[in-house]
Amino acid sequence: MQDLLIRGGRPWGGAITDLAVRKGRIAELGAELPARPGDEVVDAGGCLILPGLVDAHAHIDKTLWGTPWHPHQAGPSLMDKIANERRVLATLGLSPERQSARLLRRMLACGTTHVRSHVDVGPEVGLAHLHGVQAMAEQHREAIDVEIVAFPQTGVMIRPGTLELLEQAVREGARVIGGLDPIGVDRDPKGQLDGIFAIAERHGCGIDIHLHDRGELGAVTVEMIAERTRSLGLAGKVAISHAFCLGSVEPARLDGLIALLRENDIAIMTHAPSGPTPFPPVRLLHERGVRLFTGSDGVRDTWSPLNNGDMLERAYLIAYRNGFRDDPGLELALHMATYGGAQLMGAPRYGLALGSDADLVLVEAETAAEAVAMHPLRRLVLKRGRVVARAGQCLLPDGD
Amino acid sequence: MQDLLIRGGRPWGGAITDLAVRKGRIAELGAELPARPGDEVVDAGGCLILPGLVDAHAHIDKTLWGTPWHPHQAGPSLMDKIANERRVLATLGLSPERQSARLLRRMLACGTTHVRSHVDVGPEVGLAHLHGVQAMAEQHREAIDVEIVAFPQTGVMIRPGTLELLEQAVREGARVIGGLDPIGVDRDPKGQLDGIFAIAERHGCGIDIHLHDRGELGAVTVEMIAERTRSLGLAGKVAISHAFCLGSVEPARLDGLIALLRENDIAIMTHAPSGPTPFPPVRLLHERGVRLFTGSDGVRDTWSPLNNGDMLERAYLIAYRNGFRDDPGLELALHMATYGGAQLMGAPRYGLALGSDADLVLVEAETAAEAVAMHPLRRLVLKRGRVVARAGQCLLPDGD
Repeated sequence: MQDLLIRGGRPWGGAITDLAVRKGRIAELGAELPARPGDEVVDAGGCLILPGLVDAHAHIDKTLWGTPWHPHQAGPSLMDKIANERRVLATLGLSPERQSARLLRRMLACGTTHVRSHVDVGPEVGLAHLHGVQAMAEQHREAIDVEIVAFPQTGVMIRPGTLELLEQAVREGARVIGGLDPIGVDRDPKGQLDGIFAIAERHGCGIDIHLHDRGELGAVTVEMIAERTRSLGLAGKVAISHAFCLGSVEPARLDGLIALLRENDIAIMTHAPSGPTPFPPVRLLHERGVRLFTGSDGVRDTWSPLNNGDMLERAYLIAYRNGFRDDPGLELALHMATYGGAQLMGAPRYGLALGSDADLVLVEAETAAEAVAMHPLRRLVLKRGRVVARAGQCLLPDGD
Repeated sequence: MQDLLIRGGRPWGGAITDLAVRKGRIAELGAELPARPGDEVVDAGGCLILPGLVDAHAHIDKTLWGTPWHPHQAGPSLMDKIANERRVLATLGLSPERQSARLLRRMLACGTTHVRSHVDVGPEVGLAHLHGVQAMAEQHREAIDVEIVAFPQTGVMIRPGTLELLEQAVREGARVIGGLDPIGVDRDPKGQLDGIFAIAERHGCGIDIHLHDRGELGAVTVEMIAERTRSLGLAGKVAISHAFCLGSVEPARLDGLIALLRENDIAIMTHAPSGPTPFPPVRLLHERGVRLFTGSDGVRDTWSPLNNGDMLERAYLIAYRNGFRDDPGLELALHMATYGGAQLMGAPRYGLALGSDADLVLVEAETAAEAVAMHPLRRLVLKRGRVVARAGQCLLPDGD
């Protein structure tokens, strides 16, 4: 593997320094480091150096990326979107392996080096999406880290056989088990939550539950998730994605929910949803010590054309939706798209310290806050020291 | 002037065609047009061809663009931001001419060919910002069309002398007279509105009023603006910018306000503000026949770092905030950033028809909806047939 010497960059917007990458790790930081024979020398020209972006809530198995533009057709409700997706995907007959590889190239071009993807598991698709994404991830293991959540997109208790498939998915390598609106979709919160927590307990895997249910529906579900997290000793292993209810309950109720999240170290994912959808109050949760992360959600799929797989733009959207104008707010949004997701995924050696994996992104900006505000072109993207994208273009061979 | 032949583009996402630019106009559209001697031939490769983007609500006189990153400092209220701006601008001592030129280069790089800019006029700054922006606009007249609104940023009736300065600005070339929260800032809506409408009547100029006041404060102001528009016969010449109140009154009240806007042909500007700020319901207003336009608002200034001057990204933000996922919604957002603003500015020969000015933007997208969803790099930007930007870079000489 080729070593690199990056001259004159600003790690997370700090003072200008050189950064030496050797054997895929950050080996040295300092002024005027000497180039070694064979080093590729990169002039960063004062660019920001960020750790690889982390897309910790994606659905890479069912993107329409790389296919002709598909006008959005789904109705407004969650159940409309689930039904529409099943119809469209059945018609198009796309391969999860090929589609996820297409999206991966886009993600790399934007500086994403780690992905947690929910992957559909259910009676219709069985484990086909899991196997497709696993094959893709194995093929691209040098370029990106992929963590798979076994995700019951069509419901759990309303679709008999799903729990068994989810458990089989975990046996076959999914590191996390998912859930979906135990009340709104299943109308059986006890059944769904007891089922998936039992699987997590048996296999020692993480849990990441999609919770779109708003107001009290969602709030009660948060309580039920917290109870099970505590009684099974799973603090630190559970996440709730979307958690719209945290943006749509009254302040006193929110206080109590935040305390539960904190006590049980339950992480919260928001991607700052489009439209008038409520979403968790990011700065307040952060100040109260709740771990936060973010992701693209579905990228150009039957759910929405509005997510485009760029995690620096996602950090911008979080800042924009939350009205963050100050540097700490802009940096909090960026933290969610980097360290927040990396911590969730348990990524070893993540970051900008000596000895960290050289998962690095060069961005033409002076400070971390400016990188979020402008989300400009990614000049260079490294995965464990290997150059995987330059000037916004992925360098991996196109598998299409 | 060099003529161009653009091969294989899709005007507004339509069928692939060649497009010939001669003497700065769209001279021919059709398949396999012959290149003439001396033509620059551009391979559009199936790219979308859009008319030049229109930033019809900007504040180019006081951007911090091109200066070191300036962390946001202002407090949350409108009056906090006005006071903070006066403090910061006095300290930095920036030149409106130079700052507006800096931002103009960014705008051109993003495909903007027309700008309506509010320019501060008031007792402290007098007409210095007007003169600075006028000098800049004159210098760049071949590259971009700039229309100036004389804007009372510090209030009208609470700052004696402002009305006289506004009228002087109109005499000296401002084509539009502005206003600012006649109740919230001035506490004298009759005074402010009578004053600025009288100037508009005397000089035949347009009116464009900043209205941040929410709920009933704003609603009453809309009524007062509509009354004066009717009694002075100014239908079609008045615009209200921001109009947050249209997003924060009850539905029956909104119906009545929309009828007034429609009857008096008052145009509405929203840029889909950041944070929890309410904003006008775009699709509803469009369906009811209210003219809509958009703009960047202040780009990287003391008000906010969140606006970056890219009008295709602005169309995306309008779609995202309004929850537009379908193609008509995405195209409506793009219409606001093109034809909507051009109509407001009365831009002659705007558009993609034969004989139109060749103000064109090439975007790597298949459809107009995709261009909004992805807002990718602008491949080529033409102003009256002249290439002003390529691959996201402005080609004008840097005046710095």
